[in-house]
Amino acid sequence: MYKQISSTQNTTIKHILQLQEKSRSRKKEGKCILEGFRELTLALEGNYAIDTLLFYPEICSYERIQELLATAKNTPECIEISKEVYQKIAYRGSTEGVLAIIQTKEHSLKTITFHNKTPLILVAEAPEKPGNIGALLRTADAANIDAVFIANPKTDLYNPNIVRSSVGCVFTTQIAMGSTAEIISFLQEKDIAIYCAALTASEHYHLQNYQKATAIVVGTEATGLSDEWLNNSTQNIIIPMQGKIDSMNVSVAAAIVIFEAKRQRSFL
Amino acid sequence: MYKQISSTQNTTIKHILQLQEKSRSRKKEGKCILEGFRELTLALEGNYAIDTLLFYPEICSYERIQELLATAKNTPECIEISKEVYQKIAYRGSTEGVLAIIQTKEHSLKTITFHNKTPLILVAEAPEKPGNIGALLRTADAANIDAVFIANPKTDLYNPNIVRSSVGCVFTTQIAMGSTAEIISFLQEKDIAIYCAALTASEHYHLQNYQKATAIVVGTEATGLSDEWLNNSTQNIIIPMQGKIDSMNVSVAAAIVIFEAKRQRSFL
Repeated sequence: MYKQISSTQNTTIKHILQLQEKSRSRKKEGKCILEGFRELTLALEGNYAIDTLLFYPEICSYERIQELLATAKNTPECIEISKEVYQKIAYRGSTEGVLAIIQTKEHSLKTITFHNKTPLILVAEAPEKPGNIGALLRTADAANIDAVFIANPKTDLYNPNIVRSSVGCVFTTQIAMGSTAEIISFLQEKDIAIYCAALTASEHYHLQNYQKATAIVVGTEATGLSDEWLNNSTQNIIIPMQGKIDSMNVSVAAAIVIFEAKRQRSFL
Repeated sequence: MYKQISSTQNTTIKHILQLQEKSRSRKKEGKCILEGFRELTLALEGNYAIDTLLFYPEICSYERIQELLATAKNTPECIEISKEVYQKIAYRGSTEGVLAIIQTKEHSLKTITFHNKTPLILVAEAPEKPGNIGALLRTADAANIDAVFIANPKTDLYNPNIVRSSVGCVFTTQIAMGSTAEIISFLQEKDIAIYCAALTASEHYHLQNYQKATAIVVGTEATGLSDEWLNNSTQNIIIPMQGKIDSMNVSVAAAIVIFEAKRQRSFL
């Protein structure tokens, strides 16, 4: 028998709501909330530890919980929750009946390791919209790039909207956060070419060679990249814009350049 | 002096709310609501006619209105509205103080004309999310492709969320709607190659030649393309997925393939 919670006033439930809502609590405790089987499976594959697993047995069977936990490196506390509690803590439209408190990771540049001599890296400076960050992480996963760096982050990586819009890709890619200065130093020390997506002094993106160690750097749609990046750029690049509108969604632009790099590398 | 409206109960204001909310009203009347200077400028450039223009003079000056209308092909009725009315009809966060009732266009395949012998076309089958449709239209504009076809549409093109997320690109690209059967016939008659994004019998997208007349066809993330498309495909294509996740956002996938086609065409 598992422990049961049927009151929305229970302290564990209040704790979960706090971790969902408050970036400060996530950072202070090094924990976040995760929902859904795919996301939890990806987190386990990425060696994240689950502290507490909560499930609503009407829609999530004991067997599925056992199956999921078979690959866990620790044994989390499992709790059965009532419908009322599930509806209180689940995201609207969520239908899988499972949530967990998991331990977040430290995303410092020190933790980054490369398995080849010509890594392909995506850098996003100060991205704000969770949906854009999630989309960038999905692209990073699809292209299996070597790392994503977030420079001067505006939001914590475990924001529920980022986790959700990344469909769990926040757990599948090496990610580091740092100041723009730290990331530039890291890239320069490792002799990684810096291609900044920018409107000035730019060459067409598809005429560059991305077969060497490469970082593709994108800013926000509103303000673009800081001078700090532009002053340290190996080459500024631009996607030719041939329509009436002069801007592109940042996750679309990044995907176009990343997949051109992958094409040049024959997807190896 | 312009006509003034200060009551949210005014029939024109009620009419606007109805056009914002009801697809049926937009279709029946052939009208929709548009907000913001960029969107209105693009609509005028695209030869859309404005019926009625409403502005809140505290944030949108008479001069800007005159400037905007200098390029209009007709003379719309202009109405000054009060703060209360503006807040009632404007999208939250909207700050430009201008809205209009415009006449929509008929988007039948008959209206499509090509200015070159090797058009590049994007086809989306049954796209549902307005945000995805808007993103597809932004990409279509950026790449200046020859047309966008929406097969078996699930939503009308003038849904406010589509207009907004397309940042007005709904007015800058030739768009036709039709059944999948109609669009396949159209493409076959004009000898346009059909590349279906699909998981089965697919070749890598970047190994195909898109320099001839080409249609790139994408389905929804959830269900992919119908058999009707797959049975009429010149070649199914796939973007190599090298990560843990097996799906891509449809607007990101379409952008990757469209820009590969543009690269092969040297962006001419």
